[in-house]
Amino acid sequence: MSSTAQLQPVLDRIDADFDNSLERLFALLRIKSISADPAFAGDCKAAADHLARDIATLGFATEVRPTAGHPAIVAKANGSKDGRPHVLFYGHYDVQPVDPLNLWHRPPFEPAVTTHADGRKIIVARGAEDDKGQLMTFVEACRAWKSVAGSLPVDVTIVIEGEEEVGSKNFVPFLESNKEDLKADFALVCDTGMWDPNTPAITTSLRGLVYEEVRIKAANRDLHSGIFGGGAQNPIRVLTRILGGLFDDDGHITIPGFYDGVKDLPPDILAQWKKLNLTPESFLKPIGLSIPAGEKGRLLIEQISSRPTCDVNGIIGGYTGEGSKTVIPAEASAKVSFRLVEGQDPAKIRKAFRDYVTARLPGDCSAEFGDHSSAPAIALDWNMKPLAAARRALTDEWGKEALLIGSGASIPIVADFKRTLGLDTVLVGFGLEDDNIHSPNEKYDLKSFHKGIRSWARILAALAEMKG
Amino acid sequence: MSSTAQLQPVLDRIDADFDNSLERLFALLRIKSISADPAFAGDCKAAADHLARDIATLGFATEVRPTAGHPAIVAKANGSKDGRPHVLFYGHYDVQPVDPLNLWHRPPFEPAVTTHADGRKIIVARGAEDDKGQLMTFVEACRAWKSVAGSLPVDVTIVIEGEEEVGSKNFVPFLESNKEDLKADFALVCDTGMWDPNTPAITTSLRGLVYEEVRIKAANRDLHSGIFGGGAQNPIRVLTRILGGLFDDDGHITIPGFYDGVKDLPPDILAQWKKLNLTPESFLKPIGLSIPAGEKGRLLIEQISSRPTCDVNGIIGGYTGEGSKTVIPAEASAKVSFRLVEGQDPAKIRKAFRDYVTARLPGDCSAEFGDHSSAPAIALDWNMKPLAAARRALTDEWGKEALLIGSGASIPIVADFKRTLGLDTVLVGFGLEDDNIHSPNEKYDLKSFHKGIRSWARILAALAEMKG
Repeated sequence: MSSTAQLQPVLDRIDADFDNSLERLFALLRIKSISADPAFAGDCKAAADHLARDIATLGFATEVRPTAGHPAIVAKANGSKDGRPHVLFYGHYDVQPVDPLNLWHRPPFEPAVTTHADGRKIIVARGAEDDKGQLMTFVEACRAWKSVAGSLPVDVTIVIEGEEEVGSKNFVPFLESNKEDLKADFALVCDTGMWDPNTPAITTSLRGLVYEEVRIKAANRDLHSGIFGGGAQNPIRVLTRILGGLFDDDGHITIPGFYDGVKDLPPDILAQWKKLNLTPESFLKPIGLSIPAGEKGRLLIEQISSRPTCDVNGIIGGYTGEGSKTVIPAEASAKVSFRLVEGQDPAKIRKAFRDYVTARLPGDCSAEFGDHSSAPAIALDWNMKPLAAARRALTDEWGKEALLIGSGASIPIVADFKRTLGLDTVLVGFGLEDDNIHSPNEKYDLKSFHKGIRSWARILAALAEMKG
Repeated sequence: MSSTAQLQPVLDRIDADFDNSLERLFALLRIKSISADPAFAGDCKAAADHLARDIATLGFATEVRPTAGHPAIVAKANGSKDGRPHVLFYGHYDVQPVDPLNLWHRPPFEPAVTTHADGRKIIVARGAEDDKGQLMTFVEACRAWKSVAGSLPVDVTIVIEGEEEVGSKNFVPFLESNKEDLKADFALVCDTGMWDPNTPAITTSLRGLVYEEVRIKAANRDLHSGIFGGGAQNPIRVLTRILGGLFDDDGHITIPGFYDGVKDLPPDILAQWKKLNLTPESFLKPIGLSIPAGEKGRLLIEQISSRPTCDVNGIIGGYTGEGSKTVIPAEASAKVSFRLVEGQDPAKIRKAFRDYVTARLPGDCSAEFGDHSSAPAIALDWNMKPLAAARRALTDEWGKEALLIGSGASIPIVADFKRTLGLDTVLVGFGLEDDNIHSPNEKYDLKSFHKGIRSWARILAALAEMKG
């Protein structure tokens, strides 16, 4: 029986088994696999073990393999039919920290289905979308295929890492050293979003990322501002002055050379994007804002997807507790990240930022830098065959043409797959803008989870039918 | 017997009893009376009770009296001889928070005598100087007088509060409502410093203080910088831009009207100060700095004592934990304080700062302000009689002429004594610049403590001999 003929029973099976799919997702969501905080290393290991056991039940040859950091999972279901496409599916079981905890409406690791203000059913938990919910859409699609057809329509290797939220520093060497074992024809990644709750999308460009930490030091100890104020340099003054100068009045980033190599959108793409009509009303109003904060003279959709940006993601210095303390601190620090676009070299941007800070240091101050992660921007081939197959499958499932879109976020693994394994990637995901990923009250629409599973079931069939 | 005749046995007694004086100070230093943190309210009460019991043993009629915040102590030893001067001694038993705790070389509430790098013996603990060590110099001087002479040479009321480090908000109403009970001829305060380890000083001018908290808010929740970066306003960007603009390139504060009413020093005082030759080498080198950070064209001694200043005392926003998080926070906040000089009105400065921030807010951002404390600058009468008596006594004890100096720090209670009780204040203290008050490893020189007690014993005698 062809994959196409088997598809309907697979979809029916997904619908019938959906409550169990949800319970399996919940079991994963209950594990506090926060990769950034060493206190949760045991939970990360537990998440890997749990997920590996679950995937093994689908007939995959599954292993939890150590890395220099949190472990990775490698699972293989190879039909060994010559000529079948072989896909490498990627996801990550680690999640972002949950602070500020007091803003969560329910405990972040006690998943539940609740009703959104507008009536949508949503799954609420840290990782509900990013990336546990998303990766489970693929796992559950495999389960349905296995259960109905006895096997998957294509060869599948699943690789799941535990350090995506902290820059995948140990996963990239892992890819290098498991190159032979991870051979495939192309990669599938489920870590992106839809255009809107009813319109599926495939992401074909991704912004890159450079994430820096900078610490400004002045005196050799904290000082009393009454005694030393006016005489001693204050690192917060220096840090705010430097960071405060990163933007000009029109929202352009002032670091010399920052925009070198950045190209304007081709006119045809710009015309398409204009038609999408992404307005402040639709994009910013739900988060309480109304004014696009990026470069003046650019469409909002350009600001968030095709233009490079800078954000201070964190800052701390001096006394930040209750009440007041008249202290001049010895140091102050900030986490600063840049979203990069095609044409920008992460190493050059990092150096330009460090040079910018160093050039602005007054006497008596020093700067220390830390490097959290870096990845170049990605532009994928819009014409690759698996992408066309996936697009057709998504359009069938959702009843609306799947859009090809640019994403403002970075998925550095896409570049790593190309470089280490020689693989192109198809990025399909079911996230929505209001999913609050990386924020309190992260959620995943129940519809995204359900139709996400169905979408992957269709994509697997479409890939099997794909002409080489 | 005259006070003068009794002085030598009192001084001898102080020397003989010094180890016990130290042990009594240690007992007070062990109490974690951090007023800023509500978690230590019980410790503040314990410090008040402990100190009251100790002072009661000197024959003072002593009471721990409630305020709307931490309690105050009122203790009276009135000889009721007509015509004797009546002094009101003031100190505070509360201390600053101890963070960052990891920078302390020993636990902050386990006092010990250690040896400074240059050989000086020092008492190390939070509050060793500010103000437990300082206030105990007076208490121990009274103890010696009582022990040798059976009574004090002048009438003394001691008032000790527990909220000096958080702005004395509840102590000022307490003064108002205990006005009759706190009548005296003048006030003595031991919360200031010497000129150097061998040169005593009386402080005759104090900078004022305005302490503000500002919180910038933008989106209604934390956002993912990949999805929203470039489109959504970032409150840290706004806060750093505003705070980063508070100073011009010459170190002047840019808030409109900030310097209104500020006068240059009289030429004769400026000439005296020039002679003191306060150099970056002597003042800044011990704290690891070399370049005066204040207004260009001013002497360092002006920058730290007669010129108004601004310091950001704390800043926080976004993710500040281990590793990285690509978040655009919903808010960011800072604690900002201003040291004021004669001619500046705290209310006007507060309003000017708030106007400055508000005028610079971009669309979609709001600012919330909090008021931690405010006090005008103080200029005391250099010619008041008790000041001359104290100066003579200090000169006798230290063998070097006591200097009359300006202090960069605020002691708002001095203005409150004048306003509520009509009292002038004499400010005598034995702190040193390297005492690390408000910082890790706070210390008080053993010599400051010992000769501080002896100094007060002499001052009490000199005040008794003072011609009305």
